[in-house]
Amino acid sequence: MRYPLTVRNLLERSRTMFAHKEIVSRMPTGVVRHTYGQYYGRVSQLAHALTDLGVGRGDRVATFAWNHHRHLEAYFAVPCMGAVLHTVNIRLPAEHIIHILNHAEDKVLLVDEDLLPAILPLRDQFKTVEQIIVMADHPLTAENVVDYETLISGRPTTFAWPEDIDEWEPAGMCYTSATTGNPKAVLYAHRAIFLHSMLLCMADTLGLSESDTVLPVVPMFHVNAWGLPFAAVWMGTKQVLPGARPHPADIAQLLQDEKVTITAGVPTVWLGLLQVLEKGDYDLSALRAIACGGSAVPRALAEAYRKKLGLPILHAYGMTEAAPLTHVARLKSHLTILPPDAQQDIYDKQGLLVPGLEMKILDQAGNEVPWDGKTFGEVVMRGPWIAAEYYKDDRSSDTFYDGWYHTGDIGIVDQEGYLKLVDRAKDVIKSGGEWISSVDLENAIMAFPGVAEAAVIACPHTVWDERPLACVVPKADAKGALHKEAILEFLRNRFPHYWVPDDAVFLDELPKTGTGKFDKKVLRGKFQGHYMAG
Amino acid sequence: MRYPLTVRNLLERSRTMFAHKEIVSRMPTGVVRHTYGQYYGRVSQLAHALTDLGVGRGDRVATFAWNHHRHLEAYFAVPCMGAVLHTVNIRLPAEHIIHILNHAEDKVLLVDEDLLPAILPLRDQFKTVEQIIVMADHPLTAENVVDYETLISGRPTTFAWPEDIDEWEPAGMCYTSATTGNPKAVLYAHRAIFLHSMLLCMADTLGLSESDTVLPVVPMFHVNAWGLPFAAVWMGTKQVLPGARPHPADIAQLLQDEKVTITAGVPTVWLGLLQVLEKGDYDLSALRAIACGGSAVPRALAEAYRKKLGLPILHAYGMTEAAPLTHVARLKSHLTILPPDAQQDIYDKQGLLVPGLEMKILDQAGNEVPWDGKTFGEVVMRGPWIAAEYYKDDRSSDTFYDGWYHTGDIGIVDQEGYLKLVDRAKDVIKSGGEWISSVDLENAIMAFPGVAEAAVIACPHTVWDERPLACVVPKADAKGALHKEAILEFLRNRFPHYWVPDDAVFLDELPKTGTGKFDKKVLRGKFQGHYMAG
Repeated sequence: MRYPLTVRNLLERSRTMFAHKEIVSRMPTGVVRHTYGQYYGRVSQLAHALTDLGVGRGDRVATFAWNHHRHLEAYFAVPCMGAVLHTVNIRLPAEHIIHILNHAEDKVLLVDEDLLPAILPLRDQFKTVEQIIVMADHPLTAENVVDYETLISGRPTTFAWPEDIDEWEPAGMCYTSATTGNPKAVLYAHRAIFLHSMLLCMADTLGLSESDTVLPVVPMFHVNAWGLPFAAVWMGTKQVLPGARPHPADIAQLLQDEKVTITAGVPTVWLGLLQVLEKGDYDLSALRAIACGGSAVPRALAEAYRKKLGLPILHAYGMTEAAPLTHVARLKSHLTILPPDAQQDIYDKQGLLVPGLEMKILDQAGNEVPWDGKTFGEVVMRGPWIAAEYYKDDRSSDTFYDGWYHTGDIGIVDQEGYLKLVDRAKDVIKSGGEWISSVDLENAIMAFPGVAEAAVIACPHTVWDERPLACVVPKADAKGALHKEAILEFLRNRFPHYWVPDDAVFLDELPKTGTGKFDKKVLRGKFQGHYMAG
Repeated sequence: MRYPLTVRNLLERSRTMFAHKEIVSRMPTGVVRHTYGQYYGRVSQLAHALTDLGVGRGDRVATFAWNHHRHLEAYFAVPCMGAVLHTVNIRLPAEHIIHILNHAEDKVLLVDEDLLPAILPLRDQFKTVEQIIVMADHPLTAENVVDYETLISGRPTTFAWPEDIDEWEPAGMCYTSATTGNPKAVLYAHRAIFLHSMLLCMADTLGLSESDTVLPVVPMFHVNAWGLPFAAVWMGTKQVLPGARPHPADIAQLLQDEKVTITAGVPTVWLGLLQVLEKGDYDLSALRAIACGGSAVPRALAEAYRKKLGLPILHAYGMTEAAPLTHVARLKSHLTILPPDAQQDIYDKQGLLVPGLEMKILDQAGNEVPWDGKTFGEVVMRGPWIAAEYYKDDRSSDTFYDGWYHTGDIGIVDQEGYLKLVDRAKDVIKSGGEWISSVDLENAIMAFPGVAEAAVIACPHTVWDERPLACVVPKADAKGALHKEAILEFLRNRFPHYWVPDDAVFLDELPKTGTGKFDKKVLRGKFQGHYMAG
């Protein structure tokens, strides 16, 4: 049957079968609850309001908001009416917000009241935004904006959703940060969201079920909270949305009070929660899974959770370009007999490719390398929920070519199929045809006594193309006492000889990016002649 | 990404990530084991062999076989090479087998050695079959057939699968029995098999996982063993295939020895198994789910399993036209607090519509009826794995119209969304605009002392269109002692007055169909003037 895979199919199921199930939002005034029955009515009301504002098929509607029920209403009203949900990252600098709204040509913008101060000063620079809707908890009167509740109030609680939406029509869009220049946009077709939602419910990924209660700490402005809200509405899963600026103690309270079974967020969230759990006394016995992604999970953190809650952190890997889930570090059944440490070695990896996708690991020449647990290469993927291009962006062909999405991540796959990331493509050191992981060297150097921070960068080299250079910041009390020969000797005992940097330099501090990562680009610029001169 | 949903995606995953997992087959010589690594090699070898036999894109390849590894090899070799897997029901009468093979225009036929005697006498009447391949356990030399193992032996263990298969191309076909006339064919697109396989892995359906061991008792010639082999290969799930004519004791032994976690079959299978379990001592502690479909599960059977194994029988509903799964009777989380009897009332139903499909219940005028737990109507559905027509069949428009698949099943949906079937559309009695369930009346009459069997049929009536007539077979010792007025009075206390048959007739026996069901068509013919004359 030529039945299209659309977002509306997801919405109707919770209305017809799970109308009594709850959406719980942590709001400034306290926790508020809506049933899926009420939710469907409010989604319909929002669709009527947006229609009256002139939002039509294919128009972009932006959101600038935390995780709460109103944001979730936009998640379904916008795509089900045939428009495109554009979730804007509230943490972007002003110039990126301006660029994004103009590039997406957003027609309407839904903003949280407490985020309005970040938006209003930019308003004159938004070229296409015709209306700003403020998602406030109480009727709000401000100039040039409309109040969400006032806008939807009294409208019909059903909507004549268009029946002719094609599954290839866009339902959502997200921007992903670029190494240089403006953020790049990824469009999600209805089909991709449908399939990715099915994926999240499969037993061998997250196994999301009606019987779960899900709390996405990952923001709804970040790759659609990993797609969890879509899947949860579909299954009729109770959702707990933590609202604005949740403190780890708020998360702990919600996890306990709402008997959350599955939660998801980045490592720093779980680091913060751990501190709260170690101080207070929370009953988190309902929890069955802590999904973690965005960056690698520190070993100590994972082990602390195993001890504290008896739960492994479920490591997931993905990206905006993939809607986002591509890998989950689940133990295969025959590996469950391994001792805890060996199991943790597997949980530390990015995991197994999820069903439905294809993956290859490519060397510098673009040839596939074996899954042998030691050969490096760039991770490339393709599949039904992986993008084919960036939306209206000349940079697309740098990332999408030969029919594959090139992640820019350098990884190793072992013989079981578990992927482990070792570096970013731009940071890996390409020396005489071999690849050297800057991350592995940095982790080793930072374990050397007296070292505060270390970055290892590629420096151009006449013979080897590139050679590694260690940039080391000594601890305050070690200044002058650290010797580079001792560090390099330390590395010689741990790595193949060609991995060991030819030189190390001491710095007072490392340059950092806006998000706090080492800015290796600045370092590479500074030291680009280091080996050439020598 | 315009990435097609094809069967090959499923196959590649078990090769790359689960090469060591097992496919266990109960064969005449004992249990044989293949790894998914070996399986991939044999699938490729079969594809080479079929290619050499001239099987090309879109050609139909028929199988006439039990559940075993060779049949499973055909399950993937045929669709992955771009041909169409046509699984033929070995229980059909000869004239239907001839019709089916000619209608499908099968080019090659794979037959089990022990089923060859049913096929060879028909061979001259197969108009398109160019080659018969015998799936024998030892090299076989017979005239005009080729031996499977000899045929694939020595061929390359990889195959250059076509890269350009469109997801809408047919991958499989099954015939379903028709009320009158020849069986009707349903084509399964690659896309439908891909999506249906995802469905089986969702937590709220069967939740099939790599960590499962699956034993499909449901035959691979019956709606592709409910799609389980496709999903199991994809997930790398260990499969246990019970081979030819498995006795319930064979099933029990395999369930125990192979630590099966999920099994699937029709009620009679579980009835037979129960008898074995009650006699012998089997350890089935690994079992987590017994999926049951095909016909309603008798209450006593379900309760016996709950007592014996502590497991509810997982009632599923579906049909050839839907690949097949459409409903699963899982308890919603808020219903798990019900007492066991009330839970069993829910497990007895056909269940909740699975994610991705749409369902309506239509009255005689084609209007949707409410989900109120009491209003009858025909179950109609549509969705991504539901057929849009029968293949080359004039009868398609009787079943597929107004954009919906009309099941011919009469059901009730309660306010929670659970479907309960009450009759077949052709058997339900349409009286004065109301529908009366023949099945409910029959079950009541059969509970009356002295009644051996009862069928209730519709008889034409001048005023009411149709009125029910009870056809009753007394038990041998009750002949002459049964009075129709007593039976009708018994019904008056249990059903609305208009449900009660106007008359009852006593018969020595009821006519039966080839599959042992009451042949109501014969009864309707016999009694069509019963109320008109009066």
